[in-house]
Amino acid sequence: MNTTYSIELVDTITTPPAKRHRPITMAVDIEPTNGTSAAVSGVKAQSPEANKGYSSRVVLTTYPGQSVVNPIPLNWGEADPDNRGPVLVSRNGKTLSRRNAIGAHGGSYCVYTALTIAAGGLPPGFKPSFENTEPTFDFPQQAAWSDTSKIVAMDPFGHDIVRHFQRHLNDGLDVRPTIAVTRANMRVAEISEWIREGQIPVDGNIVISDAGDVRVTKVAVEPVWYLPGVAARFGVDEGTLRRALFEHMGGSYPELVTRPDIKVFLPPIGGLTVYIFGPPERVSDPSVKLALRIHDECNGSDVFQSDICTCRPYLAFGIAEAIKEAQAGGSGVVIYFRKEGRALGEVVKYLVYNARKRGGDTADRYFARTEGVAGVRDMRFQELMPDILHWLGISKIDRMLSMSNMKHDAIVAQGIPILERVPIPDELIPADSHVEIDAKINAGYFTTSKKYTEEDLKQVKGRGWQGWEDLEH
Amino acid sequence: MNTTYSIELVDTITTPPAKRHRPITMAVDIEPTNGTSAAVSGVKAQSPEANKGYSSRVVLTTYPGQSVVNPIPLNWGEADPDNRGPVLVSRNGKTLSRRNAIGAHGGSYCVYTALTIAAGGLPPGFKPSFENTEPTFDFPQQAAWSDTSKIVAMDPFGHDIVRHFQRHLNDGLDVRPTIAVTRANMRVAEISEWIREGQIPVDGNIVISDAGDVRVTKVAVEPVWYLPGVAARFGVDEGTLRRALFEHMGGSYPELVTRPDIKVFLPPIGGLTVYIFGPPERVSDPSVKLALRIHDECNGSDVFQSDICTCRPYLAFGIAEAIKEAQAGGSGVVIYFRKEGRALGEVVKYLVYNARKRGGDTADRYFARTEGVAGVRDMRFQELMPDILHWLGISKIDRMLSMSNMKHDAIVAQGIPILERVPIPDELIPADSHVEIDAKINAGYFTTSKKYTEEDLKQVKGRGWQGWEDLEH
Repeated sequence: MNTTYSIELVDTITTPPAKRHRPITMAVDIEPTNGTSAAVSGVKAQSPEANKGYSSRVVLTTYPGQSVVNPIPLNWGEADPDNRGPVLVSRNGKTLSRRNAIGAHGGSYCVYTALTIAAGGLPPGFKPSFENTEPTFDFPQQAAWSDTSKIVAMDPFGHDIVRHFQRHLNDGLDVRPTIAVTRANMRVAEISEWIREGQIPVDGNIVISDAGDVRVTKVAVEPVWYLPGVAARFGVDEGTLRRALFEHMGGSYPELVTRPDIKVFLPPIGGLTVYIFGPPERVSDPSVKLALRIHDECNGSDVFQSDICTCRPYLAFGIAEAIKEAQAGGSGVVIYFRKEGRALGEVVKYLVYNARKRGGDTADRYFARTEGVAGVRDMRFQELMPDILHWLGISKIDRMLSMSNMKHDAIVAQGIPILERVPIPDELIPADSHVEIDAKINAGYFTTSKKYTEEDLKQVKGRGWQGWEDLEH
Repeated sequence: MNTTYSIELVDTITTPPAKRHRPITMAVDIEPTNGTSAAVSGVKAQSPEANKGYSSRVVLTTYPGQSVVNPIPLNWGEADPDNRGPVLVSRNGKTLSRRNAIGAHGGSYCVYTALTIAAGGLPPGFKPSFENTEPTFDFPQQAAWSDTSKIVAMDPFGHDIVRHFQRHLNDGLDVRPTIAVTRANMRVAEISEWIREGQIPVDGNIVISDAGDVRVTKVAVEPVWYLPGVAARFGVDEGTLRRALFEHMGGSYPELVTRPDIKVFLPPIGGLTVYIFGPPERVSDPSVKLALRIHDECNGSDVFQSDICTCRPYLAFGIAEAIKEAQAGGSGVVIYFRKEGRALGEVVKYLVYNARKRGGDTADRYFARTEGVAGVRDMRFQELMPDILHWLGISKIDRMLSMSNMKHDAIVAQGIPILERVPIPDELIPADSHVEIDAKINAGYFTTSKKYTEEDLKQVKGRGWQGWEDLEH
């Protein structure tokens, strides 16, 4: 039974660099065994097979100054991408020692990549070919791309790594895009209906058919966090942020704690998608009008059109207004953020629905129901949201297609004025969703119609138990 | 400058339990400083503030047999939930030492929870109230719930923790649901249209209005992986699976390597949602017909209805067929999996679109384009998908509303027969999506229409550069 764990004490303050030469590792070159204790079954699990394609020692975490650690400089805020340097997060081959970021590519899909590699479906060292993948529109570099107070949650040079970081690719480093720009045609059901009704014209360029085909430029963005900048947005120190991420993701990414020299983190979460209507160069043109919808994901409404909230109707209205603005010579933008159920996920969201329906679903108690289950009324902070507006070069918003005071305040705090706020039209509010929208209006959401008193809110009821669970069995 | 790192060598094989008493920790009670080196700025980041609400020592990872480690037994496969034990993954308060799972609740939304806690919006030790959150339908326990070969990717007792694990909640342990069951009304645009056209009747119970309001039971499920079972599904040993997850998630969750005694992992990824049409008790009734659609997320089509793929049209068709089956006295189920862009994410998806459009978008090269960028044609393994069918008590599928051979084979391999496979009707296939669907059919997707030769596939072209990027600028 030849098992060895070697773990080295590393003190980044008092140990001279010469002595800091080995990472914390655990040897896993262990003979198989038929033992049955937890530890021994663990050893079985760590059989030689476990090392296919890996070093025989697991690097559990690393410390600054180790000889194996030689990161490519990453100077966040540099305007010249060559001086800024590529984001390197892969642990593949020679990139491991040159890493300058914590986390993984693909957001949470890194989990599927890991499973596919485990199953032998993909070699651990696979290098992508980027032939023909370049953006369909070359977004002009903005001053904000090199302003560490304006872009902290995405890599401003992540869309065109082949052009910017070719020499590192040539060196065999695993540089990957974190932004992709493409084009598509879409045919949204509501838009097709409004075209039939004559509310949206067919112009042959943006709306190209009376069936409702609409041309769009799409930008997908994966999160890339510059930790000092993210900490600053939330008004906390970087150490508190790193510690909270490590602890509350479940003891994940110990390098958040042990590698203070690494400032960039690619978290395992979803990103955002930008839908641009009309010529994309108009988005950053201050001389034309811009209509903008910031939308946070709500799968139950966006896809399945549940009637308990206004998400899909407001999204469809936002797309329609964006199209009309583009047809009028301006620009229309819809940005879709992956923040399901106020960033609580659908399990918590459904628990809240049950608590609302069974506890008396009135607008005055709408937020209390969520706070009871989730601790907060909304986990969807908006502090990082404006980065994409800065990246696109948006300097003002003529028509903001959102009633959210949180979104409004976050954008204005970033120095982008909002000239007009456009609420969802009453006729688009589904039957059971008045509880949600009225509660939000009372809590500060923008509206052009009447405000509500607490007494009013008590009268705004959703379908209750009877109307809700009386399916004939 | 009082910095100390204390890291202990722990050998789970040769060290007697008595000696294994301290976890790997790093002291972070460090004086602030104005130093400028990477290490020292790291020290600044680790200022006392960083420890608000935390122990002064960071537990970077743990090992079996440490005195601080005293997990509540979790016997996966036990039929009695009291013997099975609750899944405990929280690191809050006393739960830390009783943890029996790695990861975090909420899938990838644990990242938002961490940020909210860092920003002071939620106390680290928050305990949810589950009053009134119980399921709206009590799914009957199935034999599969205690079969470690049938359910390995979800917690079969995760929907009703208040009933099953009350005594642990009373002990102050942080048990949380990983499944939620609720009810809703939905009004899907295509369904409303088909009701107007008379293709779907209003029955007053499932379809309750001619505007298209449909009643549905919804089940949200977060991933909970029993690692030995997941490894078995993929035909790899547990050690290989643990090592691959740790390495390719970017050095995440070192306990995957150091805690072989912990067998359960809650990965930071999205889960699934079940939509049940008709009385939910019919789902597990072998005497009535079941129509089933397994759908993998495609935001660009499901929400924005891009015309490059058949996702949304097939989903709408699946919902319609599920409703009709329920109206005919059977049961209809649609299951929505969060696997955007074949589990590659939208950034890679868009890169592939560009490579297809610029490289000549023909069906014979459809998969090659993806493999060039992603290494595989599809990261969406289906091995874990059938778990939810076992949980629901589905013993056969009368009408499978999917052409995917991967989904078909995974379900049949789990012992659930598929009696009929129903392809998407030709009239629902969007203009630009023939490249995708024809390539899939040639690769083994089920079809009732003609198969294609390689020569045929060369002729199946999508919109090329001209039709695709000729937006008037």
